[in-house]
Amino acid sequence: MPDEQQISMNQSCIFIIFGGTGDLTHRKLLPALYKLQKHELLPDNFAVVSVGRRDKTDEGYREEAVASIQGSRKDASEEAVDPDILNRLIQRIYYRRVNFDDDHTAYRALQTCLEQLDRQYKTNGSRLFFLAVAPEYFGVIVTRLKERGMLNNRHGWQRVMIEKPFGSNLKTARELNRTITDALPESHIFRIDHYLGKEMIQNIMALRFGNSLFEPLWNHHYIDNIQITSNEMLGVESRGGYYEKAGICRDMLQNHLLQMLALVAMEPPVNLEPESIRDEKVKVLRALRPFNVDSAKQDIIRGQYGPGLRAGQPVPGYRDEERVDQNSMTDTFIALKAHVDNFRWAGVPFYIRAGKRMNRRVTQIVIEFKKLPGIEFFDNFKNQNPNLLVVEIQPNEGLFFQINAKKPGNELIMERIDLNYTQSSWVQTNSPEAYERLILEALRDNKSLFTRWDELEHSWQFVDSIENSFKHFTPDFPNYTAGSQGPMAALDLLRRDGRRWWEI
Amino acid sequence: MPDEQQISMNQSCIFIIFGGTGDLTHRKLLPALYKLQKHELLPDNFAVVSVGRRDKTDEGYREEAVASIQGSRKDASEEAVDPDILNRLIQRIYYRRVNFDDDHTAYRALQTCLEQLDRQYKTNGSRLFFLAVAPEYFGVIVTRLKERGMLNNRHGWQRVMIEKPFGSNLKTARELNRTITDALPESHIFRIDHYLGKEMIQNIMALRFGNSLFEPLWNHHYIDNIQITSNEMLGVESRGGYYEKAGICRDMLQNHLLQMLALVAMEPPVNLEPESIRDEKVKVLRALRPFNVDSAKQDIIRGQYGPGLRAGQPVPGYRDEERVDQNSMTDTFIALKAHVDNFRWAGVPFYIRAGKRMNRRVTQIVIEFKKLPGIEFFDNFKNQNPNLLVVEIQPNEGLFFQINAKKPGNELIMERIDLNYTQSSWVQTNSPEAYERLILEALRDNKSLFTRWDELEHSWQFVDSIENSFKHFTPDFPNYTAGSQGPMAALDLLRRDGRRWWEI
Repeated sequence: MPDEQQISMNQSCIFIIFGGTGDLTHRKLLPALYKLQKHELLPDNFAVVSVGRRDKTDEGYREEAVASIQGSRKDASEEAVDPDILNRLIQRIYYRRVNFDDDHTAYRALQTCLEQLDRQYKTNGSRLFFLAVAPEYFGVIVTRLKERGMLNNRHGWQRVMIEKPFGSNLKTARELNRTITDALPESHIFRIDHYLGKEMIQNIMALRFGNSLFEPLWNHHYIDNIQITSNEMLGVESRGGYYEKAGICRDMLQNHLLQMLALVAMEPPVNLEPESIRDEKVKVLRALRPFNVDSAKQDIIRGQYGPGLRAGQPVPGYRDEERVDQNSMTDTFIALKAHVDNFRWAGVPFYIRAGKRMNRRVTQIVIEFKKLPGIEFFDNFKNQNPNLLVVEIQPNEGLFFQINAKKPGNELIMERIDLNYTQSSWVQTNSPEAYERLILEALRDNKSLFTRWDELEHSWQFVDSIENSFKHFTPDFPNYTAGSQGPMAALDLLRRDGRRWWEI
Repeated sequence: MPDEQQISMNQSCIFIIFGGTGDLTHRKLLPALYKLQKHELLPDNFAVVSVGRRDKTDEGYREEAVASIQGSRKDASEEAVDPDILNRLIQRIYYRRVNFDDDHTAYRALQTCLEQLDRQYKTNGSRLFFLAVAPEYFGVIVTRLKERGMLNNRHGWQRVMIEKPFGSNLKTARELNRTITDALPESHIFRIDHYLGKEMIQNIMALRFGNSLFEPLWNHHYIDNIQITSNEMLGVESRGGYYEKAGICRDMLQNHLLQMLALVAMEPPVNLEPESIRDEKVKVLRALRPFNVDSAKQDIIRGQYGPGLRAGQPVPGYRDEERVDQNSMTDTFIALKAHVDNFRWAGVPFYIRAGKRMNRRVTQIVIEFKKLPGIEFFDNFKNQNPNLLVVEIQPNEGLFFQINAKKPGNELIMERIDLNYTQSSWVQTNSPEAYERLILEALRDNKSLFTRWDELEHSWQFVDSIENSFKHFTPDFPNYTAGSQGPMAALDLLRRDGRRWWEI
């Protein structure tokens, strides 16, 4: 075992953010770096270079970074930012201007800068690149970095973290992947799905394989259906341009929702190594039954929000959002019934749902166990609610069983009770934010929170089967009111199977 | 279906308490009657006749009853006694003096009294007798009642509720049973095990058979062992005379502990009718592996408390208690490893433990699930605590799973968490007291909370196998300090199996 200092030395690097002036950097990455600094999880030999297309001085950028970090507290209850800690981080942050599709001059200047910082911070040529840019720049940035020799230093290591979306369908994802793997090997590529950094998603595996209670029940013998929901109250905000191209399938389904499904449905891995876990996730994605026109018509509900209310205030419909086509046919909601065609899950529907401008913000997984056998003489126990296991991912983080018990009193009346975990150490502010964890794991070269190419490949295959089917029918958009539960048809999707969405 | 009024009419009766001046009547029965009155669960046509050996007037007895009911509140938080409700009950209470082994004169006077009250309260000859007397009087009272024709009125119904202990071994229990069944049929006999009236014990069946989650796990494939504990902090108090004859085996094991074991271990009954449930409980008791001298030596730990402390105050040892022999060899503690030899429970030990003057008061059932398979490569998940399901019976009433989850934070560290139910409706004061429920169910002619003769027969058979083995070895009493965890050997009983008592 390498000792702690060695591990820390191996993490020495320069962290280069492409898209350093963007929204993601200011809202998530800089606050995450502060948290890592605060928890003393950043290596001593470490510097940050933010790269953007605007002209800024180091000082000017640092001021903006300070403001972003100070403004990132979720609420007044969260600990105030410590000026000493903040200062230690800020002093190590630099800004460089590069037009991402620039010729080599700008990249050469960047390279010079990195080499100079290498000497100053003793980072030995190791670089962690974070591509927080529009997806069309992923390819060109990686190509330029490769051409300038920044991805194959003899000393240290080079890794690239890439934000979603990774392609827009199987074909473009394959092209992008070819470009990137031409520049550096798979083992140096960290494709981000920030849901994998969320506390309760990490907990799914711990719960399933760290207890003897769950695994015996975790199959089609005992589970009736599984519901995966990720609803937002927000609309597309300022991201209409991106959203018009992405839609809910590329924005949520292809990545976050299918990753959650894979973690819930996978077989126990051979061990807890990242590659073993990804092997099992790929098997689930490969077992997903693709849609055809008929099954898509029957089992997929598309939606786009019209105008409505949020917290009593009128909000525009999707087609009236900035940079959105007045006749847009982009989906902002999807609900579907998926099937994992393997021995474990035969016959168990996976109901998946995601939407923008919904009535509440909630990401959760509900495992609905089969109903009791309808034994005629167990009158008091008939028609009970089924047992549920609920994993709450956001905004609350929690776990509970919903079961039936005798209501206290003189009669044998059953009531629903929740066995839940509410220890204060699980309050949200103590859980690391996803990006804090993602940067840390990339520094540590731990890939379990990142998606491997074949995971992406098979999830795109599945999503392509959906998108291709969509060409054959034209929904009547908009079909749900902002601030509602989504299209009525999404409720019918379960109702016709004698089931219901559990609104926990 | 009979309508509500009919049900109420069928419950009309006179409730006759033999032992009306005794401790049980004043501490439990009178407060229970008050609660039933308060909840409007007593029939309109109803009166109480307390029968004792002392001379008292109705008025004198009523004053004592009022005092007992007013003094019965558990604490200041409990609702005050309502004088109107109390008065409605008290007016219907009468006192009659009978020496239980009297000749017929006294019983004839009692009969005349009952017949007169029959007319006054329109109770139509129905009688519910409650024998809250020393066990040696059970036989004679029932015989006298029969001889005076009070158990076979043509009109109405007659039932007899009998307190524990029902016999002192299989032989005497059989004799007593013969006497009683000579006087009235099994279906009119209500043998009390007041644990069966406890909220959480009633809940065991609701949990097991009102959920789909538990039954698949409820067997030797998934359960490692089951621990049933009923410890008291009290000593024998004023009941030394009784206790010298009973000991912990007759006082706790033969009835309460084996009833709990039967409910936890039984197969699903054909339906929820009392006889179907009792059929299954009997099967468990019949499957209990009897002890012989060798197995008793190995798997039973006997104990008797010596002097010690309770809440910092010195308390006497058992042999110094009132009406206890200075050289008494009576057991005040027992711990044993029992086996239910059937398909479901093969190889699963049932560790049972009860004691007086223990360090804490707790009655609970712990289901310990098997440990995870010790997979070498699941390093982070190895050596976790096993999953537990805990049913808390007293002093707390509750239910929880103890499982393992990922500790919030950047590392995959496992921690133990409790998924528990803590809804305020389960706070103790809302749960009916056992005797309230027992009287109500006897009025309703519902026998599921009472023990059938064959249950008693087989539990005595098991306890006889223990008591007979005890003749062959003499423990070194006293062997535990009052206020302790009991004899050290009780800890070793599990330790040598690689297990431990879960102190929840």
